[in-house]
Amino acid sequence: MRLTRHGEYALRAVAFLAVQPQGELSSISEIATRENIPRNFLAKILKDLQRAGVLKSYPGAAGGYRLAKPAEEITYRMVVEAGQGSLTEPADAGSGRNGHGRPLISSIFAHWDEANAEFIRILERTRISDLPKWTPSGQPTAPERAA
Amino acid sequence: MRLTRHGEYALRAVAFLAVQPQGELSSISEIATRENIPRNFLAKILKDLQRAGVLKSYPGAAGGYRLAKPAEEITYRMVVEAGQGSLTEPADAGSGRNGHGRPLISSIFAHWDEANAEFIRILERTRISDLPKWTPSGQPTAPERAA
Repeated sequence: MRLTRHGEYALRAVAFLAVQPQGELSSISEIATRENIPRNFLAKILKDLQRAGVLKSYPGAAGGYRLAKPAEEITYRMVVEAGQGSLTEPADAGSGRNGHGRPLISSIFAHWDEANAEFIRILERTRISDLPKWTPSGQPTAPERAA
Repeated sequence: MRLTRHGEYALRAVAFLAVQPQGELSSISEIATRENIPRNFLAKILKDLQRAGVLKSYPGAAGGYRLAKPAEEITYRMVVEAGQGSLTEPADAGSGRNGHGRPLISSIFAHWDEANAEFIRILERTRISDLPKWTPSGQPTAPERAA
């Protein structure tokens, strides 16, 4: 399973917002510049994070984004799923999951689902506050290349 | 993460072979018919399983496939990966994994990798012998629809 750029950017944007002073708003341009994320890419991700209840957006010239709740209450899972989509597959999607009651097929999917549930539980336990505190990408290590 | 048809068919084919009398060979056509798997689809999967060391193939008119080792020694993971590809992503594939040493990015990927490793560990612990013994799809439940 792959953490996509969408998922990664979502986590980086949220980590950036987590270190802003309480109540302060960050514009898309500011986040894009500080995290070196293409602006249009980021705009979509921020909308998805807002829809997921992770961020709040305020319109207007002085508007921008902030976290909708404390970083301790935002799970890694919430952010990744907002960014790159659900980590639980839609039931029956493209598979033979419907085995018409055959114990073999039920068991094949039950083992898979158990492993996937454990995968998700780990990302659910992890909070944004568990990640290292955001620091500018140029300090103290070499700056990141543009994506 | 999704168990694809390829992965599912690989598991079903191996479960079928696991109940054949020791040393007996099954032809592609036989497996395709008994498990209701499209023949061409199955032929590719059996080749991949052979390449992965799960099956042995014997050529000729009386040839066919059998397990390369006891079902207790074949993991769910081996079979699924032979069928649908590696469950560990190729490092850096399409992601910003190379964060130039930024602790935030390293940690984002470390949490993801930890969850994925646990997912794989569960499928590694599961053996083909842990699945219900193969029975014909028509007995005792309704037959499966053709894929």
